[in-house]
Amino acid sequence: MSGKMKAIVKHHRGYGAKLQLVDIPSINDHEVLIKVKATSICGTDVHIYKWDEWSASRVNPPYVFGHEFSGEVVEIGANVTNVNIGDSVSAETHLVCGKCSQCLTGKAHICKNTKIIGVDTQGCFAEYVAIPSANLWKNPKEMPYDVASIQEPMGNAVHTVLAGDVVGKTVAIIGCGPIGIMAVGVAKAAGAAQVIAFDVNEYRLDLAKQMGATSIVDSKTVDPLQIVQQLTEGNGVDVVCEMSGHPIAMNQGFKMVTNGGRVSILSLPVRPVEFDVTNDIVFKGITVQGITGRKMFETWQQVSGLIHSGQVDVKPIITHHFSLEEYEKGFDLMMDGNCGKVVLHP
Amino acid sequence: MSGKMKAIVKHHRGYGAKLQLVDIPSINDHEVLIKVKATSICGTDVHIYKWDEWSASRVNPPYVFGHEFSGEVVEIGANVTNVNIGDSVSAETHLVCGKCSQCLTGKAHICKNTKIIGVDTQGCFAEYVAIPSANLWKNPKEMPYDVASIQEPMGNAVHTVLAGDVVGKTVAIIGCGPIGIMAVGVAKAAGAAQVIAFDVNEYRLDLAKQMGATSIVDSKTVDPLQIVQQLTEGNGVDVVCEMSGHPIAMNQGFKMVTNGGRVSILSLPVRPVEFDVTNDIVFKGITVQGITGRKMFETWQQVSGLIHSGQVDVKPIITHHFSLEEYEKGFDLMMDGNCGKVVLHP
Amino acid sequence: MSGKMKAIVKHHRGYGAKLQLVDIPSINDHEVLIKVKATSICGTDVHIYKWDEWSASRVNPPYVFGHEFSGEVVEIGANVTNVNIGDSVSAETHLVCGKCSQCLTGKAHICKNTKIIGVDTQGCFAEYVAIPSANLWKNPKEMPYDVASIQEPMGNAVHTVLAGDVVGKTVAIIGCGPIGIMAVGVAKAAGAAQVIAFDVNEYRLDLAKQMGATSIVDSKTVDPLQIVQQLTEGNGVDVVCEMSGHPIAMNQGFKMVTNGGRVSILSLPVRPVEFDVTNDIVFKGITVQGITGRKMFETWQQVSGLIHSGQVDVKPIITHHFSLEEYEKGFDLMMDGNCGKVVLHP
Amino acid sequence: MSGKMKAIVKHHRGYGAKLQLVDIPSINDHEVLIKVKATSICGTDVHIYKWDEWSASRVNPPYVFGHEFSGEVVEIGANVTNVNIGDSVSAETHLVCGKCSQCLTGKAHICKNTKIIGVDTQGCFAEYVAIPSANLWKNPKEMPYDVASIQEPMGNAVHTVLAGDVVGKTVAIIGCGPIGIMAVGVAKAAGAAQVIAFDVNEYRLDLAKQMGATSIVDSKTVDPLQIVQQLTEGNGVDVVCEMSGHPIAMNQGFKMVTNGGRVSILSLPVRPVEFDVTNDIVFKGITVQGITGRKMFETWQQVSGLIHSGQVDVKPIITHHFSLEEYEKGFDLMMDGNCGKVVLHP
Repeated sequence: MSGKMKAIVKHHRGYGAKLQLVDIPSINDHEVLIKVKATSICGTDVHIYKWDEWSASRVNPPYVFGHEFSGEVVEIGANVTNVNIGDSVSAETHLVCGKCSQCLTGKAHICKNTKIIGVDTQGCFAEYVAIPSANLWKNPKEMPYDVASIQEPMGNAVHTVLAGDVVGKTVAIIGCGPIGIMAVGVAKAAGAAQVIAFDVNEYRLDLAKQMGATSIVDSKTVDPLQIVQQLTEGNGVDVVCEMSGHPIAMNQGFKMVTNGGRVSILSLPVRPVEFDVTNDIVFKGITVQGITGRKMFETWQQVSGLIHSGQVDVKPIITHHFSLEEYEKGFDLMMDGNCGKVVLHP
Repeated sequence: MSGKMKAIVKHHRGYGAKLQLVDIPSINDHEVLIKVKATSICGTDVHIYKWDEWSASRVNPPYVFGHEFSGEVVEIGANVTNVNIGDSVSAETHLVCGKCSQCLTGKAHICKNTKIIGVDTQGCFAEYVAIPSANLWKNPKEMPYDVASIQEPMGNAVHTVLAGDVVGKTVAIIGCGPIGIMAVGVAKAAGAAQVIAFDVNEYRLDLAKQMGATSIVDSKTVDPLQIVQQLTEGNGVDVVCEMSGHPIAMNQGFKMVTNGGRVSILSLPVRPVEFDVTNDIVFKGITVQGITGRKMFETWQQVSGLIHSGQVDVKPIITHHFSLEEYEKGFDLMMDGNCGKVVLHP
Repeated sequence: MSGKMKAIVKHHRGYGAKLQLVDIPSINDHEVLIKVKATSICGTDVHIYKWDEWSASRVNPPYVFGHEFSGEVVEIGANVTNVNIGDSVSAETHLVCGKCSQCLTGKAHICKNTKIIGVDTQGCFAEYVAIPSANLWKNPKEMPYDVASIQEPMGNAVHTVLAGDVVGKTVAIIGCGPIGIMAVGVAKAAGAAQVIAFDVNEYRLDLAKQMGATSIVDSKTVDPLQIVQQLTEGNGVDVVCEMSGHPIAMNQGFKMVTNGGRVSILSLPVRPVEFDVTNDIVFKGITVQGITGRKMFETWQQVSGLIHSGQVDVKPIITHHFSLEEYEKGFDLMMDGNCGKVVLHP
Repeated sequence: MSGKMKAIVKHHRGYGAKLQLVDIPSINDHEVLIKVKATSICGTDVHIYKWDEWSASRVNPPYVFGHEFSGEVVEIGANVTNVNIGDSVSAETHLVCGKCSQCLTGKAHICKNTKIIGVDTQGCFAEYVAIPSANLWKNPKEMPYDVASIQEPMGNAVHTVLAGDVVGKTVAIIGCGPIGIMAVGVAKAAGAAQVIAFDVNEYRLDLAKQMGATSIVDSKTVDPLQIVQQLTEGNGVDVVCEMSGHPIAMNQGFKMVTNGGRVSILSLPVRPVEFDVTNDIVFKGITVQGITGRKMFETWQQVSGLIHSGQVDVKPIITHHFSLEEYEKGFDLMMDGNCGKVVLHP
């Protein structure tokens, strides 16, 4: 396919982005071309939009950004055999090397040579996107495009919550951004007895409640450790999903977890964090996990299973819809914080 | 406490049982006396009632049988520190040695010297029962006694279903007796995408439906393997919970499970069963697990968490209530099969 | 590369094979051409050589068979990036689809669409072999070619033994063919306290002894269950690696394993096998695993690590070396049974 | 048994200890009296001897300290059934409550109400010690008493190293005190391909070498990260056992571990430690474990299996023997650091 398409282009090394007409990408033998139907805005996209230190060191404008999407396959490369034209697909956004020790042993999500779609390559904030066939995930026909679009971040939530068992347990979700809110729904669907959600934003705590949190805690006004003591009869929580990146909240997580518990960290604190290793890690005999990406493709299978079966209803999480042209409204909302997932429709 | 109490006594080496007045049990230093509030009938009790080959070889009438119960602590031995008078308790029914290799390594549920309450010792079909403190499980005050009474068999269901992961997966429950029906609820609560229940009894399949089965299959009229192919797009199920004990159903389980899947067997087939080891186990790379009892006390914690949180609503499972005196109605129902759990109230 | 090469061809649908001149294989963009330096004979090759029921139903003569090898890369396809000319390589022999549920979730070794090199495609009993780059395993330069050649079957041993923990445990290896003998060495290297090897062939039991078996048992003359009772103070073994395929030996494995133990089955019994499910699986609470192939590529990494570090010395296992031309001697030896691995050198 | 015995008494709230005559302990119904045959000095004992901040806040002189030992049972309480007079025993030193959530779910080693023999109760630096029967571990008759005495600290090493798989992997042991040296032997026996030992004390690095370290690194003179890069071809180590407690060494551990690796921390840093959570934990997708005590009694079973089978030869670790009377020499040596385990013989 040739011609032009509308795309949100990170056009310069500074604030913002521009809607522009660019070439429809051409595909090679192992790629497919996808007509984007829905594309959601990630926190990473906001960093790029705002142009912070991290983006300045990583991305190379001008280019099309965005990486969460769903769409319809419209063209397939000569060597592609896993999808057909007309299929509804989403994509794993980690482009991995397939050759390192991690890739060779079932841990491709932590490949040492990872590139990310829309960060290191052309992205999906556009009418079309070209994706290597190895990264495609086929969606059930019945799955709405907006829902399919948010499977990638939902994968982060699933990967974090299900990095250990939660059945009948008490799970703390620290930080109720979109992924935190999803994590609430996942923990509930996976059989947690209690899901305690922490944040300082009422809008987000309300979304957490809608997703099934058994308790929501505004950490500005209530002492997280005290409320956990009450809710767990002094035992502490079994699992902490750390999604705030805040050093104080993070340390609270290590203090509220019970002996032998699990702390799974998805957040990316901007500076080193100090821990009381002796009392909060060693004597407690806890397990701390760094969580990145999505297991390829166990996590995708779990996400798809949870959504398609209705075990997790993600509708409350998708709070706003805009056309691609209205992208600035979407970014403004994301920066404001009073939203769940914001979906753009090219 | 001294005096007499009403009890259902397996009075002779033959069919049936009798309601008799017997001595209230006395307790030793590490036991507690419990006023039984609810006691449910297990399939094992029916075997003893009917006096089959197994019971003839195992139990020694006359004695009080029954092992599933809940009640109130009314007296505690001198060395007991884990419960107080007035507490609501249930009990793990495996009396284990604490000295064998299994007991010493966290596998007391498969202790080689296990004795069973109500089988090898005096049971709970009575107004009072004496239980070693190490076997007690403390119930939340708010948990109704009938619900608390069925936690022991629910533990079998939880142990079987949760012997591996089920989130987002397809789970087959083969055999919808009371434990099978509970297993349906547990699989659903733990995040299974599909729960397919198999039986030949419509009443029980209907209960499975109420507990959340996404598909119910009458194996008399529908080919289990064919329907699984349809429901899983040819992939097969991820997990089989075998609770039928029937050699044909069991082999169907091994055929319907997908490569790399899990077959967890709780049932006790009366005769050896023949398997196609090469094709159904080795080439498929599956895992087969024998499941017995409840992990002490991980399983109890999971059961309690699932029930107390409302993740599993066991009300539909408890289909009949009788007074202790009406025990014959209870046993008749159990032998008839058109029931879930039958609870007696002393 | 073009021209002719020597190869052992399964030339007809009957007994035997012929050394013939055939075309050197041409490679496509994702394949490499390898000069074979060492190629070992597998039990599967013997089945094909003898032309039994299984081979008659599976392979299509005339073709070059053989699948265990090591060699030097002499030509690489346009898309190949993981090896270079001159590299020493071996190959995973399972050709997998990459698209099924198993392949997508880290279980490619049980891909439902598996083809096998030298069974379903042209093999390595030849001077050259063409292999897809995705199946290559790069060997350390220092690893001798004969040693590198037997990594594939060693992978079966590693996959079986290490399908669970063995440190400080008692491991039974039932059946001391070449893979059984390797399993002895692997169990020992991985920290087993006792490794008890069972067979009926003295030559092989002697090899098992050389590989570190703490006890060898001739099942013809000594009762396996009795000796296990003695060696384990009545406890039974913790792990059984079933590599005999014999129904009686297999049932002995299920009887000698302790409660909560593991039975990992690599063998392929030719007929269904009957088990006492109730007493030998359920009441014991054991885990039974079907083992096939090698985890891609966790198992290869373990094999390489164990051999390269000297933790397992495989030299005693390679009992015979022949030129490719002497293949009939090799097959005769394999049929006779008094050998470990037999390696051919093209 | 009544009468007096020799014991090393922490006699005052200050430096040192005194050999005194004290009453032989009397036992209750669930305890046994043991004639101590060998008792080794732990780092904890040195803290108490030196009277640091921690000991001042924890222990109550005057009392008999010491907790690592082996001995012969000479008297048993009325309710004791797991050992007989004449048995050789050692003891788990954690006295646990048996009632908390951790104790009830197979994690008694992190019981929230743990007391420690010789710290919170009378210890074993004496001719006799009284131990609750639940804490006893029966030794094989053939095991020498000095070897049996060091099983407790060896359990720490085993617990740390075997908190995950090491077969065919590269393991870093950071800190070669006695437990670090044991960890080297355990990693080697459990199949590690490389064991890299780090310390700044040559005597201890030499012991590490004797125990099987494939590389020893003096962190004073060689850059740990650089040498790891070389030894692992840039991949990093798979497993870090942190036993130094030093913040710099600890951070080096987090930097040298490969993506998806494991860091198991047994050490007790005296102050909070700062980590680069984003780069060293989250992006790497590693697992960090706090390790305390020994799993009761899985770890003991592993220790016993490894020693009794000869898989780990602990002889090089026991560098010094003294009579009980010579305790001051033992403590001086321990403070000096040029020793492995120091064993006292009452």
